[in-house]
Amino acid sequence: MNQFVHQRHKTESRLKRSRELVVACAPMRSNVNVSSIARTASACAVERLILIGNASLISKIARDSVSELEVSIHRTLKPVLQKLRDDGYRLVGLEQTTNSTSIHNYGFTRRTALVVGNERTGLKADILDILDDVVEIPVYGLPHSFNAAIAASMTLYEYCRQFPNG
Amino acid sequence: MNQFVHQRHKTESRLKRSRELVVACAPMRSNVNVSSIARTASACAVERLILIGNASLISKIARDSVSELEVSIHRTLKPVLQKLRDDGYRLVGLEQTTNSTSIHNYGFTRRTALVVGNERTGLKADILDILDDVVEIPVYGLPHSFNAAIAASMTLYEYCRQFPNG
Repeated sequence: MNQFVHQRHKTESRLKRSRELVVACAPMRSNVNVSSIARTASACAVERLILIGNASLISKIARDSVSELEVSIHRTLKPVLQKLRDDGYRLVGLEQTTNSTSIHNYGFTRRTALVVGNERTGLKADILDILDDVVEIPVYGLPHSFNAAIAASMTLYEYCRQFPNG
Repeated sequence: MNQFVHQRHKTESRLKRSRELVVACAPMRSNVNVSSIARTASACAVERLILIGNASLISKIARDSVSELEVSIHRTLKPVLQKLRDDGYRLVGLEQTTNSTSIHNYGFTRRTALVVGNERTGLKADILDILDDVVEIPVYGLPHSFNAAIAASMTLYEYCRQFPNG
């Protein structure tokens, strides 16, 4: 009798309520990263993904998120974030900044818009100015940064850990 | 005065002791995933990465891990894992299996070898047989799985969260 037997694509964990988590990406360099974020967000049952400019999903990477996730593409980020704030979302940047909080010590608000910065340039000052909080993921070695899709996924993981039932 | 100002590649968090965490990958389909895991592992100050067969790192993706991380390439996985067990490492698979534990409820042992499965076929029975534990990351929506490098990164994040000082 083997204790562990591989099960591919096990049934998902059921949420007790819908996730009130939105992911908004600044204009990104790489549609590979955008598509990776989309796949992870969809597997986390994120309600909505906001993209800017000419971002598009590569279906081979984004998988079912292409059909499952509500994706909205906008011309600029700031007005969408202001609308989200009006709708009661806390605006939380994911970035290395002054006064950013280690995600290890951060308690998420259920209704959150996670704002992911560009791979190189991060989040621009006009966006940073309107955020409620900025979280960063501690790094311990070189390179002193995570890939943007990896960092976003770690943050989605942490949110789901804090709200396992939605 | 802006509260949040972008800081690229901030100084790392200092560990009080070396990480006793090793990452071992089954033979993987994609060197992109292997390289992504290498970058994340190196940023987490993982001590060693074990790869099998003809895996190799793509430096554009793996970044500084190419020079920073101790990478060892072996012909087969099982003997390396047995050696690690002899050296006191707990063998922890990352996979969806029968009797796998949700990582939300899992307390890592400091001295751990994290064993990552192939993207399609997971971990083979002869490997699953010798593992101490198998952890899985809950999924809540389609697709009912995370990309292998994403899942590995979430697990590295969780380990670092539990051992923020090494």
